[in-house]
Amino acid sequence: MTKIAVFGAGTWGIALARLLAANGRDVTVWSAIPAELKSLSTTHRHPNLPGMELPAAMHYTADIAEACTGRDILLFAVPSPFVRATAKKAAPHIPEGQLIVDVAKGVEDKTLMTMSEIIEDELAKAGRKARVVALSGPTHAEEVARDMPTAIVAASADEDAAKAVQKVFTTPTFRVYTNDDRRGTELGGAVKNVIALAVGIALGLGYGDNAKAALITRGNAELSRLGIAMGCKAETFAGLSGMGDLIVTCTSMHSRNLHAGMLIGRGKSVEEAKTEVGQVVEGINALPAACRLAKQYKVEMPIVQAVEAILDGKLEARSALMALMGRSLKRE
Amino acid sequence: MTKIAVFGAGTWGIALARLLAANGRDVTVWSAIPAELKSLSTTHRHPNLPGMELPAAMHYTADIAEACTGRDILLFAVPSPFVRATAKKAAPHIPEGQLIVDVAKGVEDKTLMTMSEIIEDELAKAGRKARVVALSGPTHAEEVARDMPTAIVAASADEDAAKAVQKVFTTPTFRVYTNDDRRGTELGGAVKNVIALAVGIALGLGYGDNAKAALITRGNAELSRLGIAMGCKAETFAGLSGMGDLIVTCTSMHSRNLHAGMLIGRGKSVEEAKTEVGQVVEGINALPAACRLAKQYKVEMPIVQAVEAILDGKLEARSALMALMGRSLKRE
Repeated sequence: MTKIAVFGAGTWGIALARLLAANGRDVTVWSAIPAELKSLSTTHRHPNLPGMELPAAMHYTADIAEACTGRDILLFAVPSPFVRATAKKAAPHIPEGQLIVDVAKGVEDKTLMTMSEIIEDELAKAGRKARVVALSGPTHAEEVARDMPTAIVAASADEDAAKAVQKVFTTPTFRVYTNDDRRGTELGGAVKNVIALAVGIALGLGYGDNAKAALITRGNAELSRLGIAMGCKAETFAGLSGMGDLIVTCTSMHSRNLHAGMLIGRGKSVEEAKTEVGQVVEGINALPAACRLAKQYKVEMPIVQAVEAILDGKLEARSALMALMGRSLKRE
Repeated sequence: MTKIAVFGAGTWGIALARLLAANGRDVTVWSAIPAELKSLSTTHRHPNLPGMELPAAMHYTADIAEACTGRDILLFAVPSPFVRATAKKAAPHIPEGQLIVDVAKGVEDKTLMTMSEIIEDELAKAGRKARVVALSGPTHAEEVARDMPTAIVAASADEDAAKAVQKVFTTPTFRVYTNDDRRGTELGGAVKNVIALAVGIALGLGYGDNAKAALITRGNAELSRLGIAMGCKAETFAGLSGMGDLIVTCTSMHSRNLHAGMLIGRGKSVEEAKTEVGQVVEGINALPAACRLAKQYKVEMPIVQAVEAILDGKLEARSALMALMGRSLKRE
């Protein structure tokens, strides 16, 4: 029986833990917060995944050494700001050559590393190497928790590792593709929320479906240009973790980034928008790293830069978006 | 002053005629239906574009020879089934080397030609050559009629022709990109409605945002595969006329194709769905050509083929979509 430890008891970690357990895997959930484990192990439910019941056979532990020992796969599903600390804590207990899957999305501000790269970095500091696969795509946890059809990408240059993950995670309603461009796969998931902010701002200004589709498409072109400059593949950005994830983020009414953007487009300040949304707005957090990447790789990213100008208060939302429309005439 | 004749008095033709006239072009609208011309020239309004007023300076004619004479640009905006007949009727009056723009979207069933190719074909029969540019992208006419921000592609291998069209059509709220892949640009607009049917069917079955994003993304991958086999460029399908148009069609609640698909997904027959939608469902009409193109160019198009199997009554909707999920495990 394939043994998997899931780090993190948020909605995505638990939705995947349930999926794996319900499909015959031996699943252990680790969390740094004992109260979360207690609630999950006694109620078999997650407060933010209504209607989902966890299989009784799942295990729970707060002991990271135990979580790291004897597992076929370690699944990192902690929020992106906690990936480095979790990897550091786990590293001494992780066996050489361990297969690891990361589902956290983001680029670290200071280092501009993706989440998989951070995990490798912390393992290297502990003198270890692992096989880290990124699993990313257009995936609301709420839908995966209810076995609604979903497609996702397992990305690694190590084809055997990506295929192993594909095999373990695939179910009749959860289709896993492989891809050898891990960095491109991760970049899409990290920067998409900035584009979602731009789409939200446009909608807040009263723009319609045409502007939304144009911003998503041209936003993906920016992402793709950045990725190519960073050595990633153009196809990745046309795939599930690129365009697919961008579509879900920019068209779902549940998206916090879209919501925050709409409030800003309607004239609220960034702080007011954050307060009204009441949860983390990833696009605002991802913006500095996106701008630094654009600068470092000398890539033109007019939509990302317009969002920066608006959020910094340097340009009014309407002027910034109209300036996008008024740029010199281009080839597509 | 740039002189333009617009063929066709539907919503898209009239929205573009207004845009051009409001931006200082001399615009003449031609229609085969005198009553349409009379209504437009007296009311300055279009029944399906509420709130839009046409500039008084626009001209109207039912005389195709007059429409074809002395124009910088002829804009074909008749419905796709009428493009060949209109081109045939106009051909004897069209000067050699005329700049023509087509905005009708479709692939002709019998010949598998795109709309621009049909226009060239009819002109060739009359011993003439023209410079035909396709103008395509994510563009609800209702939004362009209200000057809501929109981006679109002018496509032609003849770069000067594409640039001339870009220059004439660009306004502060209507951004025109150029692209040298006309066939790829037209193919996206023609086949997107079949993918919209698939998305509609999935939603009708109760699937969610994850499935929708996966179908749009994988649907675009199919379109792109077909296009590449037909000599088009992959980038075109990641652009405004490809992914952009597909996004608008698959996420707008106004889409007739999405609506028809939802009814079929909920168990209605194709005929019942057509009757309930009450207007042309382009995806149903485009399906045979899409299937023939897939066969002729030996391209795997599982989503298009699933829609065919469902509409032919060979597979139940749920089984067909689940079969898509259950295909052998793949690279992206």
